[in-house]
Amino acid sequence: METQSENACFGGVQGVYTHASEATGCDMTFGLFLPAEARDGPVPVLWYLSGLTCTHENAMVKAGAQGWAAEMGIALVFPDTSPRGEGVADDDAFDLGQGAGFYVNATQNPWARHYRMWDYVAEELPRVVTRNFAVDEERQAITGHSMGGHGALTLAMSLPGRYASVSAFAPICNPTQSDWGRKQFSAYLGDEFEAAWAAHDASLLMRERGFDGPVLVDTGTEDQFIHLLKPEALATAAAERRQRSTFRLQPGYDHSYFFVSSFMEDHVAFHAEALHAR
Amino acid sequence: METQSENACFGGVQGVYTHASEATGCDMTFGLFLPAEARDGPVPVLWYLSGLTCTHENAMVKAGAQGWAAEMGIALVFPDTSPRGEGVADDDAFDLGQGAGFYVNATQNPWARHYRMWDYVAEELPRVVTRNFAVDEERQAITGHSMGGHGALTLAMSLPGRYASVSAFAPICNPTQSDWGRKQFSAYLGDEFEAAWAAHDASLLMRERGFDGPVLVDTGTEDQFIHLLKPEALATAAAERRQRSTFRLQPGYDHSYFFVSSFMEDHVAFHAEALHAR
Repeated sequence: METQSENACFGGVQGVYTHASEATGCDMTFGLFLPAEARDGPVPVLWYLSGLTCTHENAMVKAGAQGWAAEMGIALVFPDTSPRGEGVADDDAFDLGQGAGFYVNATQNPWARHYRMWDYVAEELPRVVTRNFAVDEERQAITGHSMGGHGALTLAMSLPGRYASVSAFAPICNPTQSDWGRKQFSAYLGDEFEAAWAAHDASLLMRERGFDGPVLVDTGTEDQFIHLLKPEALATAAAERRQRSTFRLQPGYDHSYFFVSSFMEDHVAFHAEALHAR
Repeated sequence: METQSENACFGGVQGVYTHASEATGCDMTFGLFLPAEARDGPVPVLWYLSGLTCTHENAMVKAGAQGWAAEMGIALVFPDTSPRGEGVADDDAFDLGQGAGFYVNATQNPWARHYRMWDYVAEELPRVVTRNFAVDEERQAITGHSMGGHGALTLAMSLPGRYASVSAFAPICNPTQSDWGRKQFSAYLGDEFEAAWAAHDASLLMRERGFDGPVLVDTGTEDQFIHLLKPEALATAAAERRQRSTFRLQPGYDHSYFFVSSFMEDHVAFHAEALHAR
C-alpha cells in the first residue's frame, strides 16, 4: 500500500492511499480520515460512498464531514466509485464505466473483468482498512450520496449485522425502475438476467428484508434528478414494513454538495449514536 | 450582473455571480453566501480572499465556512484572485498573472491595464455586493489564505475603520523579503519603485500603522511554504507595537484546505464577535 498524502485535519489525519486490488484487478485509491482517538486504539468507522463521476476525493474535500467525525471520534472511509486505468473498460457517457461502478459485480463483457465494486467495498477494502489502521471492524456504519446512497442502502440491507446504521443523501432508491439503474444494470448484469437486478434495488430490498438498525434518508425538494431517484418508492416500502426510519424532504435543496454538507452534521451524529451504542 | 448559480446551503443561499468590472476591465466572478437572516435585512459580512491559483470557487467548496457563517448570521464573499480572460495578460508560472493578482494595482506593462485587484476588492466589489444584496456595509470583516491572507492584512491596515476585525490562514507576511512577493511586486509595481512595495507588506504596515481592531493569524508548523510566509516577521512587528492580536502556530498542520477548514470555526467566531459588537 502506498501513501499518496497525509494532512493534519481537525486534530486527526486525512490520508490518501493506493493499493493493488484483487477484487477489481487494478490499483485503487481511497481516502481515510482518522480522528485523534485512533492514536489510542481502534475507532468506529463511517463509510461514505460517492456518486456518479466522483473519485475518492470529492466528498473528502467538499462534504465537510471530518469536523463532525473528529468531534464524535469516528473514522471516515472514502472509496473510489469504480476501477480505473488504461486497461479498464470505459464508456463516453458520464453514467457508465469509470466513475460509475454502481456498487455491483459486473457479469457481462467488457465490464466483468474489473467492475467488481460490490466485492471491493463489501469485502476487500474493509480488510485493507481494518488490518492497516486503527479502525474497529465491529463498529461500522455506512452512508453515501446519489449512486453512493444506492450503494450504502443495498450493502446495508444485504449484509445484516455488518453496519450499525445506514443513511443516504439523495440516494437512487429504485434503480430497476429508473434510467439511473436500468441502463447500468443492463450493461453490467445483462438484460437477460433482470431478476438479478432486484438484489441491487433498495426499494425492493426494503420490501423483502429491511434493515436491522436505524435508517436516515435526506432528499432536497429542488433536487434536479429527483425523478430519477424516486425517494417515494423507498419511503413507501419502509412504511409498509414498519422499518425504523426517517425520510426527510429538505425544502429548497438540490443535488449538490452544498446540500450534502448542510446535513452532514445530522448524519454523522445519527451514525455516532448507533456506533457508540455497539 | 449575471447569476451563474444559486444553491440552498445551510438554510441560506450560496450564489455565484458575474459582472463587468470597471476596475479590472473584464468580467469578474464572485461567490456570495447569504445566511437565512438576510431575508429580513442586511447582515454583517466576512470577506475571504483566496491564495495563488485559486478562483472564487476553491474556498467556497473546500473551506467549510458556510455552516459557521449560517450559525452566526454572517454573509461570506469569495472574490476571484485576478482578472481573467483571453485579452488579459498572463504568465506560464503559477505565481504570476492570472490566479496571482496579489491584491495590488499594477503600474507596469503588460499588467497595468487589468491587474487592479486592490481597487476591485477595496472599492468596486463592496459597492456591487452592498447595493445588490442584503449586506451591511457598516459591518465588514476580512480574512484570507496565503496570498489572500496577505491581501486581508494589507487591506485591513490600509483602510482604517472599514473592517471590524482581520484574520488570516498561513498568510504571506513579509512579501518584500520573500520570493512570494519580490517577484510579483517587481513585475506589477516595478523594480525602480521598490519604495512603493512597502504599502503592500503586512509586516511593514504593522510596524508603521497597526490595525484598529483584533487580529488573528494561524499558521501550521508543517506548512511546506513557511519559509516564504515569514510569520515571525509579522509576529515581531505586532509584539513591538503592542497590537491586540493572537498569533498561533498549529502543530502538524500544512498549507492545505484541510488546515484552513480545521480552524474555520475559530475564525468565523472571532469575526462574529467583532461584527456583532458594531
